[in-house]
Amino acid sequence: MNRVALLAHDEFPHFAKTAMGLLRYSTFDVCAVIDRANAGNRVRDLLPDVQDAPIVASMAEVPPVDMLIIGIANVGGGFAEDWRPDVRAALKRGCTVMAGLHDFLADDDEFAALAEAHGGALHDVRKPPRSLGVSQGRARDVSATVVLAVGTDCAVGKMTVALELTRAAQARGERAAFIPTGQTGIMIAGWGHPIDAIVSDFVAGAVEDMILEKGAAHDWLFVEGQGSIIHPAYSAVTCGILHGAMPDALVLCHEEGRARSKGFEGFPLPNPGAYVDLYEGLTRPVHPARVAAGALNTRAIDDTAEAEAAVTRYGEALGLPATDPVRFGPDAILDALL
Amino acid sequence: MNRVALLAHDEFPHFAKTAMGLLRYSTFDVCAVIDRANAGNRVRDLLPDVQDAPIVASMAEVPPVDMLIIGIANVGGGFAEDWRPDVRAALKRGCTVMAGLHDFLADDDEFAALAEAHGGALHDVRKPPRSLGVSQGRARDVSATVVLAVGTDCAVGKMTVALELTRAAQARGERAAFIPTGQTGIMIAGWGHPIDAIVSDFVAGAVEDMILEKGAAHDWLFVEGQGSIIHPAYSAVTCGILHGAMPDALVLCHEEGRARSKGFEGFPLPNPGAYVDLYEGLTRPVHPARVAAGALNTRAIDDTAEAEAAVTRYGEALGLPATDPVRFGPDAILDALL
Repeated sequence: MNRVALLAHDEFPHFAKTAMGLLRYSTFDVCAVIDRANAGNRVRDLLPDVQDAPIVASMAEVPPVDMLIIGIANVGGGFAEDWRPDVRAALKRGCTVMAGLHDFLADDDEFAALAEAHGGALHDVRKPPRSLGVSQGRARDVSATVVLAVGTDCAVGKMTVALELTRAAQARGERAAFIPTGQTGIMIAGWGHPIDAIVSDFVAGAVEDMILEKGAAHDWLFVEGQGSIIHPAYSAVTCGILHGAMPDALVLCHEEGRARSKGFEGFPLPNPGAYVDLYEGLTRPVHPARVAAGALNTRAIDDTAEAEAAVTRYGEALGLPATDPVRFGPDAILDALL
Repeated sequence: MNRVALLAHDEFPHFAKTAMGLLRYSTFDVCAVIDRANAGNRVRDLLPDVQDAPIVASMAEVPPVDMLIIGIANVGGGFAEDWRPDVRAALKRGCTVMAGLHDFLADDDEFAALAEAHGGALHDVRKPPRSLGVSQGRARDVSATVVLAVGTDCAVGKMTVALELTRAAQARGERAAFIPTGQTGIMIAGWGHPIDAIVSDFVAGAVEDMILEKGAAHDWLFVEGQGSIIHPAYSAVTCGILHGAMPDALVLCHEEGRARSKGFEGFPLPNPGAYVDLYEGLTRPVHPARVAAGALNTRAIDDTAEAEAAVTRYGEALGLPATDPVRFGPDAILDALL
């Protein structure tokens, strides 16, 4: 089940968050990216620092693979009908199709019939388990130190920061685990609860369940955050993770140049210090956490010296250590935590 | 469909929140409360200021009714098997059975078969509609003034405050509507989205949907809040309502004597001023709301002078007008809002 194709029509690379995350962090062997807008190029032409693969126009041009993965994490999580021909073709080849949509592939009659007829499978990672319940307020009791990546907005790099910190801590010999909370993180880690698809009463409970599962056998848990605590649409997800995980420390993630909420341009972002006050204030009565460091996504800046200057400004605004963990490595953040 | 029985075994009155709310605020004609622990009494023996009804031990003793309503809002929303004989008996009499559980009656094979056989129906008010989606961030654009009842904890009286304010505003000739967000509020109002049963990505969107539906034809919307912004299990619900409704003003609800989170005794509540800072801070970057008044639930205090003193202390702690709107009427709060 290791050879995969990633569907990312018209969104690759930067708007196909799931495809990008899998290319950078997963153990899948990506045999092709399907993107009609970039067909004929290779991944390395667009993203130099991740796993390489050819980019093709449709499933018909994909070499033998075990699985097709929907690589686009769109707002609302609906199935886009222009993906249907590729999903259909993959199922006719007997492939598994994996997606992290709110619309479940398994509920689609055509896909269910094709999977049945050709021996494939449909894997909806955003379908929550039925066994979840209300939090018991126990995550603060685990022996592991829990670090949560929080953000100033959605799509600033919270999953990336949690993964980079996990790997760096493991490289230092620490018993560290990544706690996924979104569809891409779940695909990378191979387990986890899709927090934004869980009924709101059980959100904290689902996060607590993961913290308790990994908390005893690890010294460090790095939790993927979601959204932002003042996001006009997604703050429920953010707040449930904050109180469900009961972190000991927070890393505040931001993208350089992001002045307004992505996709919600009528909502300017406040300065980073305002977020520190809000996140720390919300943890204080439950289980106090400090913002220990900042992580700045500088991918929009080509010049290294400019990126360094942006990181310096961000750290000064927070009064905390900061870096871009992808560009400059996560050591500055890890040193502030360990 | 107006004659109802309320099932409230072993929890009546104060732990059967739904039964209490329906007795006080609904237009249902309550013909009986079913509670084996208090059978033989009447409602007025236990709750003097609401609609009266006999209390009986089982459905067999209930006079002719159209509907049985599960009157208990338990943590986790599971179906308790000791309710089954009464639900079964109601369905065999051809009654509709209404519940606000996370476990849906309609998914129970026995109940579905009995409803089918005897011409009854199963009405799960906590089952969310499929049409919901991500918030567009538009609730702040409605012309109505939006007032949200927020709390220091769960079960302090947020729904009651919103209902009392709606009625009092209407009595003053204002075009005011109640916006329900929980199962009891939905049963009372006859419409609404069950926010804590909606997937967390769509929570703000579901609240926005209700604000937009009622915002144009009303001058005042009084929104039922849920949980508390620092509740260890339910803060996701609270935060989604706060940003989905984009209120103009908040009323901070508290119960006198509540020092620890109900059912989560390991979590002491901070002082009321800390809540004001958190709630106002979270609204500021999205759509600023001030806490305009406090509502104190004094039902645990028998002596009126003591209750008055408690209200005075609460108002002083907040630096705001305050009252117990059930005991002393909601005018002090309404005057602070209008």
